[in-house]
Amino acid sequence: MSRIVYLNGEYLPEEEAKVSIFDRGFVMGDAVYEVTCVLDGKLTDFDGHMARLARSLRELQITCDITPEEWLAIHRRLVAENGLTLGGVYLQVSRGNAGDRDFHFPPAGTPPTVVLYTQEQPHMLDGPKVEKGVKVISVPDLRWHRRDIKTVQLLWASLSKMAAEAAGKDDAWFVEDGFVTEGSSNNCYIVKGDTIITRPLSNDILHGITRAALMKILAERQMKIEERPFTIAEAQQADEAFYTSASAFVMPIVEVDGVVLGDGKPGKLSKRLREIYIEEARKNAI
Amino acid sequence: MSRIVYLNGEYLPEEEAKVSIFDRGFVMGDAVYEVTCVLDGKLTDFDGHMARLARSLRELQITCDITPEEWLAIHRRLVAENGLTLGGVYLQVSRGNAGDRDFHFPPAGTPPTVVLYTQEQPHMLDGPKVEKGVKVISVPDLRWHRRDIKTVQLLWASLSKMAAEAAGKDDAWFVEDGFVTEGSSNNCYIVKGDTIITRPLSNDILHGITRAALMKILAERQMKIEERPFTIAEAQQADEAFYTSASAFVMPIVEVDGVVLGDGKPGKLSKRLREIYIEEARKNAI
Repeated sequence: MSRIVYLNGEYLPEEEAKVSIFDRGFVMGDAVYEVTCVLDGKLTDFDGHMARLARSLRELQITCDITPEEWLAIHRRLVAENGLTLGGVYLQVSRGNAGDRDFHFPPAGTPPTVVLYTQEQPHMLDGPKVEKGVKVISVPDLRWHRRDIKTVQLLWASLSKMAAEAAGKDDAWFVEDGFVTEGSSNNCYIVKGDTIITRPLSNDILHGITRAALMKILAERQMKIEERPFTIAEAQQADEAFYTSASAFVMPIVEVDGVVLGDGKPGKLSKRLREIYIEEARKNAI
Repeated sequence: MSRIVYLNGEYLPEEEAKVSIFDRGFVMGDAVYEVTCVLDGKLTDFDGHMARLARSLRELQITCDITPEEWLAIHRRLVAENGLTLGGVYLQVSRGNAGDRDFHFPPAGTPPTVVLYTQEQPHMLDGPKVEKGVKVISVPDLRWHRRDIKTVQLLWASLSKMAAEAAGKDDAWFVEDGFVTEGSSNNCYIVKGDTIITRPLSNDILHGITRAALMKILAERQMKIEERPFTIAEAQQADEAFYTSASAFVMPIVEVDGVVLGDGKPGKLSKRLREIYIEEARKNAI
């Protein structure tokens, strides 16, 4: 069944949604994106995603005059028209199309290209990954160095997920200068005793919206957090590990580079944090 | 005047050439490209560009069954239909469109998206840059670490060119671990006495087709080449500097980070190498 998608002010069947071959998103990776999770047909952590989108656009000097209220209306209309209850809304803004390819930005006033569409994820709340936990391999972090900007330059993330799959595992962790930066599309955590360890925010990693929500949850419950980089060896000796992302919530990790963590089952704390996060996400959903 | 462009087997007006919003080139930077220079209506260093294209595709496991003869026919038809005498042909192959966005590759057999179009460059052989030489600034090299693969993940190159422009200069040199890697869209060289110094090939830089052609010219003429990294300070003390690219040939550099090289005019050797390169390019053009 064809979805109705949004493209530059129009709602149209996905097959008809096309962009120019000169679009900067297509020829230069010059675009940013967000994925907002939909639970029970409602948008979770919506303000966080829109705030990060605004920041990404600002960092790249992409002008887009859609207001937060308009973004919300577009998201809601797509969710409604496509009958989405569980999944996400993908949003992408590129610098648009100057009529030809040029390393220099197109003239001021060139409209950006704005695309949104829904994606169903029927097994977002359950499924084997949640039950059994995920297994990760490590790969060198070969990405560009402004990972705080959520651009579509995702080739290394894609290649790394394919490498994980080829190794019979679920996902990849990026390692730079001996330390884990983040997962291929998520933020990473290890648990030692009652302490949760995760890399601090910087240009080295994405400033995860789910990470921020989880950190708030942890702080409110006065749980112990250490924001510092950790190594693969340290992760392999941890009691638990997990990752966070808008579409995976809190996902338990049970194996790192072939080494099984604890008893090889999703950790208690990881499972509990997943429950709490989903509960909170449901509460803030709009 | 609208160009005739090539898109997936069709020749059509540029306004009608559009790709799916799900195309991996648009949502994931998952595409490679080449730009082949056109002199007197003929293609220069064509085999080199096609060999590099084949390598880029192989490195990313993108399947594209267009043969070298077919590539040549497409290039020639575009040059003829658009009456191009001086400029280039831009070629891009993306992994195509799986019908939805996914970090994992689309199923085997998914056709790639193939785009080619001509670009006129009337001042390729002359113009103020050639006459006066170019001025460069240095910026940190924040790109991903497989620069040997010519992907469309060009955002940092674009931002760096904009930074150069904002500084009133012409281009940017990337610096990593204290050494110049390359220019924002070219390979860099400095000249000390009769020795030409340029960074050796590795994953750190693009394996320039014009670089390869120039190296052959230098070897044939038994000129002194040192393939080693150099610093900005060393460049500032050099007698000459230049860069090479398919569309700029050999371009003299007269200023690095505000320091004027020599007498501030294009160097003799740089100018001579430019002449020789263009002469050779004309000879091998097909």
